[in-house]
Amino acid sequence: MPTAADVLKRALNGERRWLARAVTLIEHRRAGAELASLSVRRHRAPGVPHVVGITGPPGAGKSTFVDRLIGHARAKGQRVAVVAVDPSSPFSGGAILGDRIRMERHTGDSGVYVRSLSSRGHLGGLSSATAEVVNLLDAAGFDLILVETVGVGQSELGVIEVADTAIVVLTPESGDTVQTMKAGLLEIADVFVVNKADRPGADRLARELSRSVEMGPDDEWRAPVRTASALERKGVEAVLEDAANHLQWCCGDGKAVWRRRRGDAQVRLFLDLVAERARAQALSNLEPEVAAALRGFELSPHAALETLS
Amino acid sequence: MPTAADVLKRALNGERRWLARAVTLIEHRRAGAELASLSVRRHRAPGVPHVVGITGPPGAGKSTFVDRLIGHARAKGQRVAVVAVDPSSPFSGGAILGDRIRMERHTGDSGVYVRSLSSRGHLGGLSSATAEVVNLLDAAGFDLILVETVGVGQSELGVIEVADTAIVVLTPESGDTVQTMKAGLLEIADVFVVNKADRPGADRLARELSRSVEMGPDDEWRAPVRTASALERKGVEAVLEDAANHLQWCCGDGKAVWRRRRGDAQVRLFLDLVAERARAQALSNLEPEVAAALRGFELSPHAALETLS
Repeated sequence: MPTAADVLKRALNGERRWLARAVTLIEHRRAGAELASLSVRRHRAPGVPHVVGITGPPGAGKSTFVDRLIGHARAKGQRVAVVAVDPSSPFSGGAILGDRIRMERHTGDSGVYVRSLSSRGHLGGLSSATAEVVNLLDAAGFDLILVETVGVGQSELGVIEVADTAIVVLTPESGDTVQTMKAGLLEIADVFVVNKADRPGADRLARELSRSVEMGPDDEWRAPVRTASALERKGVEAVLEDAANHLQWCCGDGKAVWRRRRGDAQVRLFLDLVAERARAQALSNLEPEVAAALRGFELSPHAALETLS
Repeated sequence: MPTAADVLKRALNGERRWLARAVTLIEHRRAGAELASLSVRRHRAPGVPHVVGITGPPGAGKSTFVDRLIGHARAKGQRVAVVAVDPSSPFSGGAILGDRIRMERHTGDSGVYVRSLSSRGHLGGLSSATAEVVNLLDAAGFDLILVETVGVGQSELGVIEVADTAIVVLTPESGDTVQTMKAGLLEIADVFVVNKADRPGADRLARELSRSVEMGPDDEWRAPVRTASALERKGVEAVLEDAANHLQWCCGDGKAVWRRRRGDAQVRLFLDLVAERARAQALSNLEPEVAAALRGFELSPHAALETLS
């Protein structure tokens, strides 16, 4: 039985089978201190690797953009990793996104590594696992790391915060969702795409988003708003260019903003780890009598908490 | 300055202003041990109060069902509380749902208490705060407690788990979301509503949901699937009847299932509280040098975690 350190070492050598095992260790929280020693290139400067997040509601066309981003990077000889994160998976058993991608045209390409991440049933755990897997793939030398996640809810935004560049793919039907989530989306999105632009409402949604973006602060990146029809391959190039421009900005004028965001993400990851560890410890130390008393409403959760301190 | 215990005591006397202050204490985690002494009627038996959760994507028509449920309960002389939970609020500042409801026709009715809950920025925190506010409203003597939340993602399902009866309101356009979230929705929903049933795809979605429900285990409640057009008041009565039937089931054949679910929720709330407390403690104890080292990537989150233990 190889140790976690062994698995990580072999994974960093680029052995795909060991990479898969290392991701599983992270998923199941069986690697900890070993991850501290990873040499994460992105911690030194933005640019290599480029971590691009892609989120949006189901059916918005995220996979098409993932596919095109892979194609572009491969044409330049870059190695690409895709992390498909499915927040619905504590219920569904996961892997909806990853399976779909895996079956597509990059399957036989050894320069492309695709992995799905399923939640282990805890809110918050998915963002921290994603951040750690991205660090691993960074240290393993991938040039482009794509993080795809479905949805535009709170948990999805948490996952996408790991990215340097976040692409939010919407459809004309997303209007109501955008109203609800507007401030959150504006905070996270570096590029907006209104896909399926041949449907009614596309231009209106794009105009609304543009107006909101323009009201943002002057000194920061202003997310371009694109309309596209990914299926017909219309407007996809512009989005890829936007992503490249955003990375360039991160390396130049936007470096301070980029550093602050990455720093915030590190502190958040630390706090997530603290919370997760405390939860796991409390669960494994939970006495059967205490659990029974909780379940029987004889002991309130707050009273049980007091007994811990 | 009244103590948390004072505020709770006055809130339990039904003084609306103090109820509001008590909810704020819970939101800001300034009540803890005091909550342990609440006399929560629902912990003794199902039925009083009836806690009904309503979730679904933005624009699905949730508010109409909330409004009708309030109307029904008021006609029977019951006191009703609405907790509107907005998972987008760490970004938007919240209160989207509550504001909308508050402006509607029950504003002047002293038998209806409406309160919105905004996230305090932590995943998971919203579910535990919701559970605690529901306990408070239970102890304060409300007969019907409605928990409305927008979305069908993981965090929304976490919020809705507090309910005895969960109504999931979808629209024909929700088809893709349903595919992604199916197992999660099936686990949580006690009643499915396909609203805006005049739009194409409504019957197909309803049929698909029915088929999935029928594949479930025999001994449990089978969620009825209704089509409705809430705006035209079509199909709403049937949904209210379903909710009432489900409560009856919880009090009879389904009592063991109900007990298990409520017990699971108590254990989860306990673990949430443990995780939240650990996170808050780590944040307030975070030394400036450690924070700077984390932000500067000189100290990894895992290494920082090790220094704590």
